[in-house]
Amino acid sequence: MLTLYYSPNACSLASHVALEEIGAPYEAKRVNFGAEQQKSPDYLALNPKARVPALVTPRGILTETPAILAFLAQSFPEKRLAPLDDPFAFAELQAFNSYLCSTVHVAHAHKGRGPRWADEVSSIADMKRKVPQTMTACFELIEERMLKGPWAMGEAFTVADPYLFVVTRWAAGDGVDLSRLPRVSDHYARMQARPAVKTVLAREAAA
Amino acid sequence: MLTLYYSPNACSLASHVALEEIGAPYEAKRVNFGAEQQKSPDYLALNPKARVPALVTPRGILTETPAILAFLAQSFPEKRLAPLDDPFAFAELQAFNSYLCSTVHVAHAHKGRGPRWADEVSSIADMKRKVPQTMTACFELIEERMLKGPWAMGEAFTVADPYLFVVTRWAAGDGVDLSRLPRVSDHYARMQARPAVKTVLAREAAA
Repeated sequence: MLTLYYSPNACSLASHVALEEIGAPYEAKRVNFGAEQQKSPDYLALNPKARVPALVTPRGILTETPAILAFLAQSFPEKRLAPLDDPFAFAELQAFNSYLCSTVHVAHAHKGRGPRWADEVSSIADMKRKVPQTMTACFELIEERMLKGPWAMGEAFTVADPYLFVVTRWAAGDGVDLSRLPRVSDHYARMQARPAVKTVLAREAAA
Repeated sequence: MLTLYYSPNACSLASHVALEEIGAPYEAKRVNFGAEQQKSPDYLALNPKARVPALVTPRGILTETPAILAFLAQSFPEKRLAPLDDPFAFAELQAFNSYLCSTVHVAHAHKGRGPRWADEVSSIADMKRKVPQTMTACFELIEERMLKGPWAMGEAFTVADPYLFVVTRWAAGDGVDLSRLPRVSDHYARMQARPAVKTVLAREAAA
Protein backbone atom coordinates (compact mmCIF):
# COMPACT_ATOMS: atom_id res chain seq x y z
CA MET A 1 0.00 0.00 0.00
CA LEU A 2 1.28 3.45 -0.95
CA THR A 3 0.43 6.63 0.93
CA LEU A 4 0.83 10.02 -0.72
CA TYR A 5 1.17 13.17 1.35
CA TYR A 6 -0.09 16.11 -0.69
CA SER A 7 -1.25 19.71 -0.52
CA PRO A 8 -4.10 20.71 -2.85
CA ASN A 9 -2.85 22.12 -6.17
CA ALA A 10 0.81 21.77 -5.18
CA CYS A 11 3.17 19.80 -7.43
CA SER A 12 2.05 16.72 -5.49
CA LEU A 13 -1.02 16.81 -7.75
CA ALA A 14 1.12 15.15 -10.46
CA SER A 15 1.85 12.12 -8.29
CA HIS A 16 -1.76 12.09 -7.06
CA VAL A 17 -3.09 11.88 -10.63
CA ALA A 18 -0.48 9.24 -11.56
CA LEU A 19 -1.59 7.07 -8.62
CA GLU A 20 -5.24 7.43 -9.62
CA GLU A 21 -4.42 6.56 -13.25
CA ILE A 22 -2.63 3.41 -12.08
CA GLY A 23 -5.70 2.30 -10.17
CA ALA A 24 -3.92 0.28 -7.47
CA PRO A 25 -5.01 0.89 -3.85
CA TYR A 26 -3.42 3.96 -2.27
CA GLU A 27 -4.16 6.49 0.40
CA ALA A 28 -3.91 10.26 -0.09
CA LYS A 29 -3.33 12.35 3.04
CA ARG A 30 -3.58 16.11 2.97
CA VAL A 31 -0.82 18.15 4.60
CA ASN A 32 -2.43 21.39 5.80
CA PHE A 33 -0.05 24.14 4.67
CA GLY A 34 -2.41 26.82 6.07
CA ALA A 35 -1.76 25.38 9.54
CA GLU A 36 1.95 24.87 8.69
CA GLN A 37 1.54 21.13 9.22
CA GLN A 38 4.50 20.60 6.89
CA LYS A 39 6.72 22.03 9.66
CA SER A 40 5.25 19.83 12.42
CA PRO A 41 7.60 17.29 14.08
CA ASP A 42 5.45 14.41 12.80
CA TYR A 43 5.70 15.54 9.18
CA LEU A 44 9.37 16.50 9.39
CA ALA A 45 10.05 12.95 10.57
CA LEU A 46 8.51 11.79 7.26
CA ASN A 47 10.05 14.50 5.08
CA PRO A 48 12.71 16.79 6.58
CA LYS A 49 12.39 19.06 3.52
CA ALA A 50 8.98 20.26 4.85
CA ARG A 51 7.53 19.93 1.36
CA VAL A 52 5.15 17.76 -0.60
CA PRO A 53 4.95 15.26 -2.18
CA ALA A 54 6.14 12.46 0.06
CA LEU A 55 5.27 8.89 -0.89
CA VAL A 56 5.35 6.30 1.87
CA THR A 57 6.14 2.87 0.43
CA PRO A 58 6.73 -0.51 2.10
CA ARG A 59 10.48 0.06 1.53
CA GLY A 60 10.67 3.64 2.81
CA ILE A 61 9.76 7.21 1.94
CA LEU A 62 10.35 8.88 -1.40
CA THR A 63 10.31 12.60 -2.19
CA GLU A 64 10.80 14.74 -5.34
CA THR A 65 8.19 14.58 -8.09
CA PRO A 66 10.40 13.30 -10.96
CA ALA A 67 11.70 10.46 -8.76
CA ILE A 68 8.20 9.49 -7.56
CA LEU A 69 6.77 9.58 -11.10
CA ALA A 70 9.53 7.33 -12.50
CA PHE A 71 9.14 5.03 -9.48
CA LEU A 72 5.40 4.66 -10.08
CA ALA A 73 5.98 3.91 -13.77
CA GLN A 74 8.61 1.29 -12.90
CA SER A 75 6.54 -0.23 -10.09
CA PHE A 76 3.50 -0.78 -12.33
CA PRO A 77 5.11 -1.64 -15.68
CA GLU A 78 1.87 -3.16 -16.98
CA LYS A 79 0.36 0.35 -16.98
CA ARG A 80 2.91 1.50 -19.57
CA LEU A 81 3.36 4.97 -18.08
CA ALA A 82 6.96 5.30 -19.32
CA PRO A 83 9.11 3.70 -22.07
CA LEU A 84 10.86 1.46 -19.54
CA ASP A 85 12.69 -0.74 -22.07
CA ASP A 86 14.25 2.12 -24.02
CA PRO A 87 16.88 4.10 -22.07
CA PHE A 88 16.94 6.96 -24.61
CA ALA A 89 13.15 7.41 -24.65
CA PHE A 90 13.08 7.08 -20.86
CA ALA A 91 15.77 9.78 -20.65
CA GLU A 92 13.71 12.08 -22.87
CA LEU A 93 10.78 11.63 -20.48
CA GLN A 94 13.07 12.29 -17.53
CA ALA A 95 14.49 15.42 -19.20
CA PHE A 96 10.95 16.70 -19.67
CA ASN A 97 10.10 16.14 -16.00
CA SER A 98 13.44 17.58 -14.86
CA TYR A 99 12.77 20.78 -16.81
CA LEU A 100 9.33 21.11 -15.19
CA CYS A 101 10.89 20.58 -11.76
CA SER A 102 14.04 22.71 -11.93
CA THR A 103 13.00 25.50 -14.31
CA VAL A 104 9.19 25.78 -14.60
CA HIS A 105 8.30 25.03 -10.97
CA VAL A 106 11.14 27.34 -9.84
CA ALA A 107 9.92 30.17 -12.11
CA HIS A 108 6.39 29.75 -10.69
CA ALA A 109 7.66 29.65 -7.11
CA HIS A 110 9.06 33.16 -7.42
CA LYS A 111 5.46 34.41 -7.30
CA GLY A 112 4.53 33.04 -3.89
CA ARG A 113 7.77 31.75 -2.39
CA GLY A 114 10.13 34.67 -2.95
CA PRO A 115 11.30 34.69 0.70
CA ARG A 116 13.13 31.45 -0.07
CA TRP A 117 15.66 33.45 -2.08
CA ALA A 118 15.54 37.09 -0.89
CA ASP A 119 14.64 39.12 2.18
CA GLU A 120 13.64 42.66 1.15
CA VAL A 121 9.99 43.47 0.44
CA SER A 122 11.05 45.22 -2.77
CA SER A 123 12.91 42.12 -3.99
CA ILE A 124 9.93 39.86 -3.33
CA ALA A 125 7.70 42.25 -5.30
CA ASP A 126 10.25 42.44 -8.12
CA MET A 127 10.39 38.63 -8.36
CA LYS A 128 6.61 38.44 -8.42
CA ARG A 129 6.39 41.00 -11.26
CA LYS A 130 8.73 38.97 -13.43
CA VAL A 131 6.81 35.67 -13.18
CA PRO A 132 4.52 36.25 -16.21
CA GLN A 133 7.64 36.82 -18.34
CA THR A 134 9.60 33.79 -17.09
CA MET A 135 6.60 31.45 -17.13
CA THR A 136 5.66 32.59 -20.64
CA ALA A 137 9.22 31.87 -21.84
CA CYS A 138 9.01 28.39 -20.31
CA PHE A 139 5.67 27.66 -21.95
CA GLU A 140 6.80 28.94 -25.35
CA LEU A 141 9.64 26.41 -25.18
CA ILE A 142 7.22 23.66 -24.14
CA GLU A 143 4.80 24.61 -26.94
CA GLU A 144 7.39 24.91 -29.71
CA ARG A 145 10.10 22.39 -28.81
CA MET A 146 9.12 19.96 -26.07
CA LEU A 147 5.47 18.88 -26.22
CA LYS A 148 5.37 16.20 -28.93
CA GLY A 149 1.58 15.89 -28.92
CA PRO A 150 -1.01 14.84 -28.32
CA TRP A 151 0.66 13.75 -25.08
CA ALA A 152 3.88 15.22 -23.71
CA MET A 153 6.08 12.46 -25.11
CA GLY A 154 4.00 11.68 -28.22
CA GLU A 155 1.32 9.08 -28.87
CA ALA A 156 1.52 7.40 -25.48
CA PHE A 157 0.25 8.86 -22.20
CA THR A 158 3.10 8.86 -19.64
CA VAL A 159 3.84 10.19 -16.16
CA ALA A 160 5.04 13.42 -17.81
CA ASP A 161 1.41 14.25 -18.62
CA PRO A 162 0.04 14.78 -15.11
CA TYR A 163 3.15 16.85 -14.33
CA LEU A 164 2.65 19.07 -17.40
CA PHE A 165 -1.02 19.37 -16.42
CA VAL A 166 -0.06 20.73 -12.98
CA VAL A 167 2.33 23.39 -14.25
CA THR A 168 -0.18 24.41 -16.95
CA ARG A 169 -2.78 24.95 -14.20
CA TRP A 170 -0.27 27.23 -12.49
CA ALA A 171 0.63 29.02 -15.73
CA ALA A 172 -2.95 30.14 -16.26
CA GLY A 173 -2.81 31.98 -12.92
CA ASP A 174 0.72 33.26 -13.55
CA GLY A 175 -0.17 35.51 -16.48
CA VAL A 176 0.62 33.06 -19.29
CA ASP A 177 -1.78 33.53 -22.21
CA LEU A 178 -2.74 29.94 -22.96
CA SER A 179 -4.85 31.03 -25.94
CA ARG A 180 -1.56 31.66 -27.79
CA LEU A 181 -0.34 28.12 -27.03
CA PRO A 182 -2.60 25.73 -28.98
CA ARG A 183 -0.62 22.55 -28.27
CA VAL A 184 -0.42 23.21 -24.55
CA SER A 185 -4.13 24.14 -24.49
CA ASP A 186 -5.09 20.96 -26.31
CA HIS A 187 -3.05 18.92 -23.82
CA TYR A 188 -4.67 20.70 -20.89
CA ALA A 189 -8.17 19.99 -22.22
CA ARG A 190 -7.32 16.32 -22.82
CA MET A 191 -6.09 16.02 -19.25
CA GLN A 192 -9.19 17.71 -17.81
CA ALA A 193 -11.35 15.15 -19.60
CA ARG A 194 -9.67 12.14 -17.98
CA PRO A 195 -11.69 10.44 -15.23
CA ALA A 196 -8.62 10.13 -12.97
CA VAL A 197 -8.01 13.87 -13.17
CA LYS A 198 -11.64 14.67 -12.36
CA THR A 199 -11.58 12.30 -9.39
CA VAL A 200 -8.37 13.75 -7.96
CA LEU A 201 -9.34 17.40 -8.48
CA ALA A 202 -12.65 16.75 -6.71
CA ARG A 203 -10.86 15.01 -3.82
CA GLU A 204 -8.28 17.79 -3.41
CA ALA A 205 -10.98 20.49 -3.59
CA ALA A 206 -13.01 18.75 -0.87
CA ALA A 207 -10.03 18.06 1.44
CA MET B 1 29.89 7.77 -29.80
CA LEU B 2 28.59 10.31 -27.29
CA THR B 3 29.44 14.03 -27.39
CA LEU B 4 29.04 16.17 -24.29
CA TYR B 5 28.70 19.93 -24.56
CA TYR B 6 29.94 21.51 -21.34
CA SER B 7 31.10 24.73 -19.74
CA PRO B 8 33.96 24.47 -17.22
CA ASN B 9 32.71 24.07 -13.63
CA ALA B 10 29.05 24.26 -14.67
CA CYS B 11 26.68 21.45 -13.67
CA SER B 12 27.82 19.70 -16.87
CA LEU B 13 30.88 18.67 -14.84
CA ALA B 14 28.75 15.91 -13.28
CA SER B 15 28.01 14.31 -16.66
CA HIS B 16 31.63 14.89 -17.74
CA VAL B 17 32.95 12.96 -14.73
CA ALA B 18 30.35 10.21 -15.21
CA LEU B 19 31.46 9.75 -18.83
CA GLU B 20 35.10 9.58 -17.79
CA GLU B 21 34.30 7.05 -15.05
CA ILE B 22 32.51 4.86 -17.60
CA GLY B 23 35.59 4.84 -19.81
CA ALA B 24 33.80 4.39 -23.14
CA PRO B 25 34.89 6.69 -26.02
CA TYR B 26 33.28 10.12 -25.88
CA GLU B 27 34.03 13.63 -27.00
CA ALA B 28 33.79 16.70 -24.74
CA LYS B 29 33.19 20.05 -26.44
CA ARG B 30 33.44 23.30 -24.53
CA VAL B 31 30.67 25.87 -24.97
CA ASN B 32 32.29 29.28 -24.46
CA PHE B 33 29.90 31.12 -22.13
CA GLY B 34 32.25 34.15 -22.05
CA ALA B 35 31.62 34.58 -25.78
CA GLU B 36 27.89 33.73 -25.28
CA GLN B 37 28.31 30.72 -27.55
CA GLN B 38 25.33 29.10 -25.78
CA LYS B 39 23.14 31.70 -27.50
CA SER B 40 24.59 31.13 -30.99
CA PRO B 41 22.26 29.72 -33.67
CA ASP B 42 24.42 26.59 -33.95
CA TYR B 43 24.17 25.82 -30.26
CA LEU B 44 20.49 26.76 -29.98
CA ALA B 45 19.82 24.21 -32.72
CA LEU B 46 21.36 21.61 -30.39
CA ASN B 47 19.81 22.91 -27.19
CA PRO B 48 17.15 25.62 -27.38
CA LYS B 49 17.47 26.11 -23.60
CA ALA B 50 20.87 27.80 -24.17
CA ARG B 51 22.31 25.81 -21.28
CA VAL B 52 24.71 22.98 -20.62
CA PRO B 53 24.91 20.02 -20.46
CA ALA B 54 23.72 18.68 -23.79
CA LEU B 55 24.58 15.10 -24.70
CA VAL B 56 24.52 14.18 -28.36
CA THR B 57 23.74 10.48 -28.78
CA PRO B 58 23.13 8.35 -31.89
CA ARG B 59 19.38 8.57 -31.10
CA GLY B 60 19.22 12.31 -30.49
CA ILE B 61 20.10 15.01 -27.99
CA LEU B 62 19.51 14.84 -24.25
CA THR B 63 19.55 17.70 -21.74
CA GLU B 64 19.08 18.02 -17.95
CA THR B 65 21.68 16.55 -15.63
CA PRO B 66 19.47 14.04 -13.75
CA ALA B 67 18.17 12.63 -17.06
CA ILE B 68 21.66 12.37 -18.57
CA LEU B 69 23.10 10.72 -15.45
CA ALA B 70 20.35 8.08 -15.32
CA PHE B 71 20.73 7.54 -19.08
CA LEU B 72 24.47 6.93 -18.73
CA ALA B 73 23.90 4.47 -15.87
CA GLN B 74 21.26 2.59 -17.91
CA SER B 75 23.35 2.64 -21.11
CA PHE B 76 26.38 1.09 -19.42
CA PRO B 77 24.77 -1.31 -16.92
CA GLU B 78 28.01 -3.25 -16.52
CA LYS B 79 29.53 -0.19 -14.81
CA ARG B 80 26.95 -0.46 -11.99
CA LEU B 81 26.51 3.30 -11.60
CA ALA B 82 22.91 2.99 -10.37
CA PRO B 83 20.76 0.25 -8.75
CA LEU B 84 19.02 -0.49 -12.04
CA ASP B 85 17.20 -3.63 -10.92
CA ASP B 86 15.64 -2.09 -7.81
CA PRO B 87 13.00 0.57 -8.54
CA PHE B 88 12.93 1.82 -4.94
CA ALA B 89 16.73 2.20 -4.68
CA PHE B 90 16.79 3.78 -8.14
CA ALA B 91 14.10 6.23 -7.00
CA GLU B 92 16.16 7.16 -3.94
CA LEU B 93 19.09 7.94 -6.24
CA GLN B 94 16.81 9.94 -8.50
CA ALA B 95 15.37 11.85 -5.52
CA PHE B 96 18.92 12.74 -4.48
CA ASN B 97 19.77 14.05 -7.95
CA SER B 98 16.43 15.86 -8.25
CA TYR B 99 17.10 17.71 -4.99
CA LEU B 100 20.53 18.79 -6.24
CA CYS B 101 18.97 19.99 -9.49
CA SER B 102 15.83 21.77 -8.32
CA THR B 103 16.86 23.04 -4.88
CA VAL B 104 20.66 23.16 -4.49
CA HIS B 105 21.56 24.28 -8.03
CA VAL B 106 18.73 26.83 -7.89
CA ALA B 107 19.93 28.20 -4.54
CA HIS B 108 23.46 28.54 -5.97
CA ALA B 109 22.20 30.19 -9.16
CA HIS B 110 20.78 33.11 -7.17
CA LYS B 111 24.36 34.27 -6.67
CA GLY B 112 25.32 34.73 -10.31
CA ARG B 113 22.07 34.33 -12.26
CA GLY B 114 19.72 36.62 -10.34
CA PRO B 115 18.54 38.40 -13.52
CA ARG B 116 16.71 35.21 -14.43
CA TRP B 117 14.17 35.95 -11.70
CA ALA B 118 14.28 39.71 -10.96
CA ASP B 119 15.17 42.99 -12.66
CA GLU B 120 16.17 45.56 -10.04
CA VAL B 121 19.83 45.94 -9.04
CA SER B 122 18.77 45.91 -5.37
CA SER B 123 16.92 42.61 -5.81
CA ILE B 124 19.90 40.95 -7.48
CA ALA B 125 22.13 42.08 -4.61
CA ASP B 126 19.58 40.86 -2.06
CA MET B 127 19.43 37.43 -3.70
CA LYS B 128 23.21 37.22 -3.72
CA ARG B 129 23.44 38.08 -0.01
CA LYS B 130 21.10 35.24 0.91
CA VAL B 131 23.02 32.48 -0.92
CA PRO B 132 25.31 31.52 2.00
CA GLN B 133 22.20 30.97 4.14
CA THR B 134 20.24 28.93 1.57
CA MET B 135 23.24 26.87 0.47
CA THR B 136 24.18 26.16 4.11
CA ALA B 137 20.63 24.96 4.80
CA CYS B 138 20.83 22.65 1.76
CA PHE B 139 24.17 21.23 2.85
CA GLU B 140 23.04 20.68 6.45
CA LEU B 141 20.21 18.56 5.06
CA ILE B 142 22.63 16.67 2.80
CA GLU B 143 25.04 16.13 5.72
CA GLU B 144 22.46 15.04 8.27
CA ARG B 145 19.76 13.28 6.27
CA MET B 146 20.74 12.49 2.69
CA LEU B 147 24.38 11.46 2.30
CA LYS B 148 24.48 7.82 3.35
CA GLY B 149 28.27 7.54 3.22
CA PRO B 150 30.88 6.93 2.19
CA TRP B 151 29.19 7.55 -1.18
CA ALA B 152 25.98 9.51 -1.69
CA MET B 153 23.79 6.41 -1.81
CA GLY B 154 25.86 4.21 0.52
CA GLU B 155 28.53 1.62 -0.16
CA ALA B 156 28.34 1.81 -3.96
CA PHE B 157 29.61 4.68 -6.10
CA THR B 158 26.78 5.93 -8.32
CA VAL B 159 26.02 8.78 -10.72
CA ALA B 160 24.82 10.80 -7.70
CA ASP B 161 28.45 11.13 -6.59
CA PRO B 162 29.82 13.32 -9.39
CA TYR B 163 26.72 15.49 -9.06
CA LEU B 164 27.21 15.93 -5.31
CA PHE B 165 30.88 16.69 -6.01
CA VAL B 166 29.92 19.54 -8.36
CA VAL B 167 27.53 21.25 -5.96
CA THR B 168 30.03 20.83 -3.11
CA ARG B 169 32.64 22.65 -5.25
CA TRP B 170 30.13 25.47 -5.63
CA ALA B 171 29.21 25.45 -1.93
CA ALA B 172 32.79 26.18 -0.90
CA GLY B 173 32.64 29.40 -2.95
CA ASP B 174 29.12 30.21 -1.76
CA GLY B 175 29.99 30.75 1.89
CA VAL B 176 29.22 27.24 3.15
CA ASP B 177 31.61 26.24 5.94
CA LEU B 178 32.56 22.73 4.84
CA SER B 179 34.68 22.23 7.97
CA ARG B 180 31.40 21.87 9.89
CA LEU B 181 30.20 19.15 7.50
CA PRO B 182 32.44 16.11 8.05
CA ARG B 183 30.49 13.67 5.88
CA VAL B 184 30.28 16.08 2.95
CA SER B 185 33.98 16.92 3.35
CA ASP B 186 34.94 13.24 3.39
CA HIS B 187 32.91 12.67 0.23
CA TYR B 188 34.51 15.66 -1.47
CA ALA B 189 38.03 14.40 -0.65
CA ARG B 190 37.18 10.91 -1.92
CA MET B 191 35.95 12.38 -5.18
CA GLN B 192 39.05 14.57 -5.61
CA ALA B 193 41.22 11.46 -5.30
CA ARG B 194 39.54 9.61 -8.18
CA PRO B 195 41.57 9.48 -11.41
CA ALA B 196 38.50 10.29 -13.54
CA VAL B 197 37.87 13.46 -11.53
CA LYS B 198 41.51 14.56 -11.85
CA THR B 199 41.45 13.96 -15.61
CA VAL B 200 38.24 15.91 -16.15
CA LEU B 201 39.20 18.84 -13.90
CA ALA B 202 42.51 19.17 -15.78
CA ARG B 203 40.71 19.02 -19.14
CA GLU B 204 38.14 21.64 -18.15
CA ALA B 205 40.84 23.92 -16.68
CA ALA B 206 42.87 23.73 -19.90
CA ALA B 207 39.90 24.24 -22.24
